[in-house]
Amino acid sequence: MIKLNTNENPYPPSPRVLEALARAADESIRLYPDPEARALRERAAEVYGVPLDHILAGNGSDELIALVLRATVDPGERVAFPVPTYSLYETIVAAQGAQAVCVPFPEDFLLPPGVAAARARVTFLCNPNSPSGTLLPLRGVEALARAVVGVLVVDEAYVDFARESALPLVGRLPNVIVLRTFSTSFSLAGLRVGLALGHPDLLKGLRTVKDSYNLSRPSQAAAHAALGDMPWMRANVARIQATRARLTAALAERRFRVPPSEANFVLARRPGVDLGPVARALAARDILVRHFSAHGLGDALRITVGTDAEIDTLLTALDEVAR
Amino acid sequence: MIKLNTNENPYPPSPRVLEALARAADESIRLYPDPEARALRERAAEVYGVPLDHILAGNGSDELIALVLRATVDPGERVAFPVPTYSLYETIVAAQGAQAVCVPFPEDFLLPPGVAAARARVTFLCNPNSPSGTLLPLRGVEALARAVVGVLVVDEAYVDFARESALPLVGRLPNVIVLRTFSTSFSLAGLRVGLALGHPDLLKGLRTVKDSYNLSRPSQAAAHAALGDMPWMRANVARIQATRARLTAALAERRFRVPPSEANFVLARRPGVDLGPVARALAARDILVRHFSAHGLGDALRITVGTDAEIDTLLTALDEVAR
Repeated sequence: MIKLNTNENPYPPSPRVLEALARAADESIRLYPDPEARALRERAAEVYGVPLDHILAGNGSDELIALVLRATVDPGERVAFPVPTYSLYETIVAAQGAQAVCVPFPEDFLLPPGVAAARARVTFLCNPNSPSGTLLPLRGVEALARAVVGVLVVDEAYVDFARESALPLVGRLPNVIVLRTFSTSFSLAGLRVGLALGHPDLLKGLRTVKDSYNLSRPSQAAAHAALGDMPWMRANVARIQATRARLTAALAERRFRVPPSEANFVLARRPGVDLGPVARALAARDILVRHFSAHGLGDALRITVGTDAEIDTLLTALDEVAR
Repeated sequence: MIKLNTNENPYPPSPRVLEALARAADESIRLYPDPEARALRERAAEVYGVPLDHILAGNGSDELIALVLRATVDPGERVAFPVPTYSLYETIVAAQGAQAVCVPFPEDFLLPPGVAAARARVTFLCNPNSPSGTLLPLRGVEALARAVVGVLVVDEAYVDFARESALPLVGRLPNVIVLRTFSTSFSLAGLRVGLALGHPDLLKGLRTVKDSYNLSRPSQAAAHAALGDMPWMRANVARIQATRARLTAALAERRFRVPPSEANFVLARRPGVDLGPVARALAARDILVRHFSAHGLGDALRITVGTDAEIDTLLTALDEVAR
């Protein structure tokens, strides 16, 4: 099975992470974890150059997305984001009884002005965006942060694969929260660890609504170890970026339109052509890619950048099923 | 440091659990966990004799408590529970904008009739209760489930230390959810795993508001292994029950009043005497016990049942600081 449907990293995490996980498998597991995840946050503060009190650790960035809404948004209030994007925003907005303002991206996935104009209590920007892979440059993120009336959440789940991050805005603009995850670049999707970086006043609200013991001991230990081996992560990212360039070119040769991706996946489009049958034909060959039916994405496949060998197999299969 | 303040198990988890955790420290950690925690739930279904679709796994029972409220209660609706009890109920009710109906326990911690009479959307019963350690027998739980108009959540965090559980009600009464945790009897507080057992229609609501990937791979693997070695857990429980009997008798000899505990802790009272200074004097001797200031509990200490050696040290220290 070649799994290119959920944006996991095809390479293993650092050996130091696996060692830390093995070390966590001892009797200390009978004790509650640190509710503040202090060791992990201290290391994150060093790595990201952000003060300790600007960092909150969560059970995946999914938990942090939910905490932002619970801490900030009352029922009926507006939450804005461009679409298509990470589908969880809409799900959690609905669960919270808030009102989603979904502003369609144009064809080229540049930020639509309606997002800032929505005057929402919270605005989500998945950057790089999923499923398009496109990045709003830092200058654009800063302009958006200054234009919105509420909180801007920059979900940087895929940013290690991109050329720049909005991290420099944290601490400088009090309404910005940057979310990071260990699931993609650090190869730790199985652990569920995310970080929220933002002004302490914003994080204080999130702390109030978070479960005390939201993050297990093994997860804290492994994320701490991952931040202790940044060269390993960067080497994997470089490999994935190289494969991404090759995949993008190969898809273009095959008459797919691919927006420039800064993530560990690409969106491959054949405008007006339903690619559902192609996704199913690939699945029949044990190759999983993601096909969306909503938001006019029926003519697109989201393909995770796997190993070079996996991508070769995919391209060969595509030549058979999507001529 | 002798830690008798947060009800952790003084004995290590089963070697099988540590082996499963060590095995989980491999490359598969780069993949997302099973959002349904199917292997864990299948084993729980066998162990507890409950159908698979009656079980939901959570990131600790704390997450499940929050999910119940989010799925069931609208702002302003009533949530009832006897007090003093697990303080998280009140915290989450407030976070949800619901209305807490706190019904005081009488001196003997028998269930006050006001709980059923509150006509609440959700009723919480921590059973055995914390901090009293007292148990409402199954017959009483069943009567309460039939008397309430809404959902009855029986939080059985400590039930493995008690003589009976409300599990037989699951499936028979459609408004009952039983919560279990791996934190106490299974010695896995560091992992954050809990189970909700109840009618599929009730769990469906919880699933709608839960994070897809709420439970990490190591946590799922370890909880699965823990359920595979019930004799280990039961042996630790038997040791703790024996120490609990000895501790209860020793405290009674020292003029403390101790409600009959069916948990892995006891509540030691000297009616009318503020025991804050005793707790601080013990802490100065590196012995941590829990002192509460709310709900008229200033005259009580909650003491986790540790090893026999830990309890001996505690009793010697008590003879010095609380004559």
